Amino acid sequence: MNNNRKAIVYVRLKDGVLDPQGVTIHKALTQMGYEDFLSVRSGRFFELEIKGDTADIDRKIDEICSKLLANPVIEKYSVEKVK
Amino acid sequence: MNNNRKAIVYVRLKDGVLDPQGVTIHKALTQMGYEDFLSVRSGRFFELEIKGDTADIDRKIDEICSKLLANPVIEKYSVEKVK
Repeated sequence: MNNNRKAIVYVRLKDGVLDPQGVTIHKALTQMGYEDFLSVRSGRFFELEIKGDTADIDRKIDEICSKLLANPVIEKYSVEKVK
Repeated sequence: MNNNRKAIVYVRLKDGVLDPQGVTIHKALTQMGYEDFLSVRSGRFFELEIKGDTADIDRKIDEICSKLLANPVIEKYSVEKVK
């Protein structure tokens, strides 16, 4: 049986941090004639496949988020366990 | 009252498409001593704030996904309505 687990880490800019990618996309939408969108914020996510027998997984995910996946100065992250 | 709605578009590579960013992160994790992760796949998401009185919003989101937010040749997308 496959006991592997999956978690998804969502990384987004903290509120108030300028999101140039989102601003650019929003401008492009307006230029393309889509006037219904008030704002666009962009983010990244990472799907992690995790060995089933891993202990202490919450702490490990937390560590890799702040060390590698996100920049804690300007970004925040959230973790969703999938199974 | 604020009737604005929000939708989140998730864009990820199609299955089978190589994800160099995910591979690189996975290698980095292994080098950092995190051996519990079997694979990493990366993706992007966009939070769209939408005017409350927008008609036909599903079609519009679908259009901007395939025209602007995702590359349909190698990427797939999914839409989550938040409110």
